Amino acid sequence: MTDPDWRYDRYDPARERLVEALCTLGNGRFATRGSAPECPAGPTHYPGTYLAGCYDRRTSHVAGRRIENEDLVNLPNWTLLRYRCRPDDAPPGPWLTPGAARHCTARLDPRTGVLVRYLFFEDADGRGLRVSHLRLVHMADPDLAAQRTLFRAYGWRGTVEVESVLDGDVTNSGVARYRDLEGRHLGGHQAGFRSGGVAWLACRTADPGVRIALAVRTEATPERPARETVTATGTVQTYRLPMAPRRTATVVKTLALRSSLDRPVADPATAACDEAARAPALPRLLATHEAAWARLWEQGELEVPGEAGRILRLHLFHLLQTLSPHTAGLDAGVPARGLHGEAYRGHVFWDELFVLPYLGLHFPEVARSLLLHRHRRLPAARAAARDEGLPGAMYPWQSASSGREETQTLHLNPRSGRWLPDHSHLQRHVGSAIAHNVWRYAETTGDRGFLYSAGAEILLSVARFWSGAATFDPALGRYRLTGVVGPDEYHDAYPDAAGPGIDDNAYTNATAAWVLARGLDLLGELPAARRAELCGSLCLDDAELSRWDALSRRLYLPFHQGVISQFAGYGDLAELDWERYRERYGDIRRLDRILEAEGDTVNRYQASKQADALMLGYLFRPSELAALFARLGYRLDDALWRATVDYYRRRSSHGSTLSSLVHGWLLTRGDGPGAWEHCREALLGDVADLQGGTTGEGIHLGAMAGTVDLVERGLTGLAAGPEGLRVAPVTLREIPRTAFTCCVGAHRGVRLRMLPGRLAVRVPASSPGPLPIVLPGDRHRTVAPGEERWFRL
Amino acid sequence: MTDPDWRYDRYDPARERLVEALCTLGNGRFATRGSAPECPAGPTHYPGTYLAGCYDRRTSHVAGRRIENEDLVNLPNWTLLRYRCRPDDAPPGPWLTPGAARHCTARLDPRTGVLVRYLFFEDADGRGLRVSHLRLVHMADPDLAAQRTLFRAYGWRGTVEVESVLDGDVTNSGVARYRDLEGRHLGGHQAGFRSGGVAWLACRTADPGVRIALAVRTEATPERPARETVTATGTVQTYRLPMAPRRTATVVKTLALRSSLDRPVADPATAACDEAARAPALPRLLATHEAAWARLWEQGELEVPGEAGRILRLHLFHLLQTLSPHTAGLDAGVPARGLHGEAYRGHVFWDELFVLPYLGLHFPEVARSLLLHRHRRLPAARAAARDEGLPGAMYPWQSASSGREETQTLHLNPRSGRWLPDHSHLQRHVGSAIAHNVWRYAETTGDRGFLYSAGAEILLSVARFWSGAATFDPALGRYRLTGVVGPDEYHDAYPDAAGPGIDDNAYTNATAAWVLARGLDLLGELPAARRAELCGSLCLDDAELSRWDALSRRLYLPFHQGVISQFAGYGDLAELDWERYRERYGDIRRLDRILEAEGDTVNRYQASKQADALMLGYLFRPSELAALFARLGYRLDDALWRATVDYYRRRSSHGSTLSSLVHGWLLTRGDGPGAWEHCREALLGDVADLQGGTTGEGIHLGAMAGTVDLVERGLTGLAAGPEGLRVAPVTLREIPRTAFTCCVGAHRGVRLRMLPGRLAVRVPASSPGPLPIVLPGDRHRTVAPGEERWFRL
Repeated sequence: MTDPDWRYDRYDPARERLVEALCTLGNGRFATRGSAPECPAGPTHYPGTYLAGCYDRRTSHVAGRRIENEDLVNLPNWTLLRYRCRPDDAPPGPWLTPGAARHCTARLDPRTGVLVRYLFFEDADGRGLRVSHLRLVHMADPDLAAQRTLFRAYGWRGTVEVESVLDGDVTNSGVARYRDLEGRHLGGHQAGFRSGGVAWLACRTADPGVRIALAVRTEATPERPARETVTATGTVQTYRLPMAPRRTATVVKTLALRSSLDRPVADPATAACDEAARAPALPRLLATHEAAWARLWEQGELEVPGEAGRILRLHLFHLLQTLSPHTAGLDAGVPARGLHGEAYRGHVFWDELFVLPYLGLHFPEVARSLLLHRHRRLPAARAAARDEGLPGAMYPWQSASSGREETQTLHLNPRSGRWLPDHSHLQRHVGSAIAHNVWRYAETTGDRGFLYSAGAEILLSVARFWSGAATFDPALGRYRLTGVVGPDEYHDAYPDAAGPGIDDNAYTNATAAWVLARGLDLLGELPAARRAELCGSLCLDDAELSRWDALSRRLYLPFHQGVISQFAGYGDLAELDWERYRERYGDIRRLDRILEAEGDTVNRYQASKQADALMLGYLFRPSELAALFARLGYRLDDALWRATVDYYRRRSSHGSTLSSLVHGWLLTRGDGPGAWEHCREALLGDVADLQGGTTGEGIHLGAMAGTVDLVERGLTGLAAGPEGLRVAPVTLREIPRTAFTCCVGAHRGVRLRMLPGRLAVRVPASSPGPLPIVLPGDRHRTVAPGEERWFRL
Repeated sequence: MTDPDWRYDRYDPARERLVEALCTLGNGRFATRGSAPECPAGPTHYPGTYLAGCYDRRTSHVAGRRIENEDLVNLPNWTLLRYRCRPDDAPPGPWLTPGAARHCTARLDPRTGVLVRYLFFEDADGRGLRVSHLRLVHMADPDLAAQRTLFRAYGWRGTVEVESVLDGDVTNSGVARYRDLEGRHLGGHQAGFRSGGVAWLACRTADPGVRIALAVRTEATPERPARETVTATGTVQTYRLPMAPRRTATVVKTLALRSSLDRPVADPATAACDEAARAPALPRLLATHEAAWARLWEQGELEVPGEAGRILRLHLFHLLQTLSPHTAGLDAGVPARGLHGEAYRGHVFWDELFVLPYLGLHFPEVARSLLLHRHRRLPAARAAARDEGLPGAMYPWQSASSGREETQTLHLNPRSGRWLPDHSHLQRHVGSAIAHNVWRYAETTGDRGFLYSAGAEILLSVARFWSGAATFDPALGRYRLTGVVGPDEYHDAYPDAAGPGIDDNAYTNATAAWVLARGLDLLGELPAARRAELCGSLCLDDAELSRWDALSRRLYLPFHQGVISQFAGYGDLAELDWERYRERYGDIRRLDRILEAEGDTVNRYQASKQADALMLGYLFRPSELAALFARLGYRLDDALWRATVDYYRRRSSHGSTLSSLVHGWLLTRGDGPGAWEHCREALLGDVADLQGGTTGEGIHLGAMAGTVDLVERGLTGLAAGPEGLRVAPVTLREIPRTAFTCCVGAHRGVRLRMLPGRLAVRVPASSPGPLPIVLPGDRHRTVAPGEERWFRL
């Protein structure tokens, strides 16, 4: 495994997008990509500052169709800095850009959340200029960010002319294949200056009209700018910094960002100016920022030795700056690509399924906030179900701010150049994922307040949807869910079928049965009036609840050749000649695009983009999964499951970053061969940009969080629940030891350390009582507050 | 004790304001006063719909001074209905108003949250018209409200002409003495109609520019209005309803209210229209509304027999519709007068001190949300301290949306007609109340996630403020807090002093010492990096923490004549001739106004508006209070405390509704004489409008919640904490038994029943484990999940 490659020493335009994404800095409220400040603005440049939850809806016309795109909005560029040398003894030099630098280095410190870039320029006469940028997006005060630039001259005297720019002429243009879509989201620009070097810029999005203001305080020596200019879409402050050998000139830009989404409500421009004016000086900002990161790491770190540990720390860093404790005050979901780029237009998919287990154990308030984000969109999900003539709630496969379905209806195959109909919105399983998250969150935290209120509304609404969607097949004597798409997006229809969708996706059906069973459990536990209220509002009479029970016992799961069928009829599909395609194309992760370009379709083949049926082994412990199957009247033994894992492992192209993760999890837990190979692929997904360019458009947040969870819960077999802390460690030679601090029910700060054959649990003195532990073999122990105990496994 | 008098059978304009306030309906997000729908709009009329947390700032000029007033905004009137009879055999009658009715009844059902008004009109020729209005503000869907009007003719045929009005020409004009202040908050009115009988009205507040939209769907028979008119500030839909004997004509108005404060963000007018169009019909709305109220009562009811029980239920009703579970999703505080009127301009004072104990036990998520409302205003409180040259956070005595000090700088004495300087903003003790609430909430719920994050920031910032504000007096050998005002607002200066404020208010000093001690406790418990972060951001070095320790042991408390002095020098003030003033004025609750009108000042006398030093006995259990005094180096024994209670009891005019409550609490807990007399006064405060007209301007939420808490915690001596549930019941003959369901730590739905000499505890089967109980005499017991146990006391 190589060192994570997010540093580079020469400016390499080809790698810059990847570095920008992996050097993104954020605080859960907003993030700024790690772009070089001196990049010239232009039609192809997107500086990349995104505000969590701030989407804008525009209409585009592509391939003759009207398309609505709701985009995570690219905000004005606050980092931009233009500069050139004005030697005393020569005419002014050109404006300098990174491409002109002799050396160029970017270094990100995930422990402190600080990015440093160094550049060295030299002109034909040997005059040198060293430029170092330091940047942070403040983790303690979520409205602030700062950038300090140091200039140092070598072999000349004169001035450096610096333009400190605040530029609102930005569009969403970070992903090439979306450039046919309307990407201009900001309008109504107003800009100006306040005393103390503060420049401000206010604008608003088109729909739903979010007002956004950025104020930047620029500090330099000399203090006063030579010129201040208001442009059509921003401001320019020009400084002339005297330069001499062995002297450093400094420009600090301190940003305050406010919007009409913020609470307390205030005029964004006024509030941003006030905050920019009174923000502390950089040394103090740095100190409080680093202290906040130290606290996050105390609460969230997963200690793992070696290179794997370094990559995991980078993954955690990106997770924590996308979903930090500040997120808990916002109406924001889990954007699949972080706040790191514009791929998938910043949409929310099902990635919280991979993110919430970690958050529930370390930052339960953030997990709760993400579930409340879904709860606020329950009316939209109910409206979507109603539009399909169905009861309950149908959560969208892709969503943004409104909670409506945002999945594209057309997508471009860059390989063939064709725009194709997209049926991925038929991934109804996303609702079960949300319901699953509700249940697991409540189990881990013991938060019945949430479970009985918003949680119950989500879970029961999803169950009601499945009940309405299922049809009884008298021939089978079972209920079916037809016309869906499973997690494996390669299969969106049967070959030669008139319409889209496949039937009885095993993952969809099994998780739906699980949700229905949990719905019944929950109704049994609710206080009487609350139960009556929910039964009334969701029309859950006795007949309906009997149907839930029947469905949870009689939903159909298909099998073939002694394995679970991914969906009904999967076994009848043709086998692909994997070797031939690997030979011909090398990387066949996007087999769907390859086959479509060949005039064929992946729907014809037993070929999966990613783990689909196997996801069941990721979501459920073996005993849970066996119980789920048994309730459905199927026997799931170890042999069947191993055969199933083996079957699909040989038929997956891993076109999703989540696929290696799930395979790695299953093989690690099952002590299977090749576990590390998959784990390693999951770890390298973004840092080595395994999908060849997609990381530059935004990280893969689900996969990053999943790798952390793979080590944390996967290796320890940890399950926090009403019975306390259950552990069932397995061995992965490549990760011999690990340690982390987590929350279990009302206990916070429980410390776990795992070594081969041994596990330690420490409970803080402030805990409300002893923590029960369940060791393998159902051995029950307790650890008292203030105590650490080692257990042999 | 009389039956709560919020019903009336004749229309009585003099009582209407009281009835309107006590018949207010709300759902925690917005509320509508119980005004008669047919009241004509006009300059003196204010319909009274308020949106929680929606304030607007305007500038006024009064008595030669510039005044900024931040008001809880009175929204457009959605209930308005004008109607007149058009008999077939006679010319049209006049537009009908309640004053013209022969009978008029208003009936509120607090159990279901439904208000019904009946009117009967009769013309000179014996033609009768019976009108019944039913109204609800929906407790399940916080955007909705509805009003159904039934018309029934007696002795004539023809039509009733009905104008269903949506009227945005409203001002804040509900409190006569504020009418010199700018009361117009809404502008930019736009209105129109959508299909399905939906009328809409959009407008915005001036500062900070909140966009508000109301959409009303009117349903009548016949379906289509005869006329639809857009006015300058709203809409009118005119219907002609055919009338015949024994037939009923119906008009239903269903309101959807949206604003730019809502999440998910959407255009308010579009969202409101969509919601109004798809809202269910009234029977379904009623059913889901009543089911939601049943759930609230299950979770929140305090069962007490007889008339006291009925009043307590009304108090709880008003509390729950001001601060419901919907509040937890908003940025709203505890408005002192509910969402029930415009007194105090809807501001937030310290009333959460009386509200949070109840909410913490029944609706902990709401309690948490109210503390987060304070946390969001920590930057404003820090700025206020900074402006005074002090560290930490100085919370304002009155606040609204921005978190700045909103206390009036002038107030009107209606008795003298003089505008007087107002120094009540010197009530710095509000910060300690907020810190106290943070600590108690964490104690009751075990929510360390909150305590360590937002909670710690509040508590430590308040402690830091006290440390900065205290000065050492070498003569006394103690620290002092000077220039403040205590809870007793009668004393805002020493007689003949040049400046405002009194020194060493015992309540302020003792609670400050308590906050400093808890700050040290908390720092000792925090995880290391979090402690370091907070110490860094608040500049808490070793010297500062030593100072906290010294202050918590050496703050000065004054005494005189064997009692605690309300403040330094209180004992030197003149004694008032209470009998003479009672004889001359009858009601002397507002002794301050009486004396000022006489050219005297209450500052000269040992006379209190309300409990001040005695509040210490309300906040702290006797053992806690003794420990607090002991840490300060004072001995507080039972004799001293009883003498202190007796002393101030004889010197209080009970000018605040909170005063009887606190006295009632102390005497009940202390088994003192006259306990019931004070409790009774506290119970009757609003329902009998004891302050003579103030209830009509808004209920007294703190006092209402306090009476519930008096019975709940006061009688049972309940304290939920890390050791489980501590109880120490006392007897109050007038309330022989009580029962309620509460949350204790991770246990929800714990049921307590108290009978003379006996107490039962039931723990639900879903509880995470046995609940420890501590009975008087430190007897430790446990109750297992699913079990109910009776204990002899």
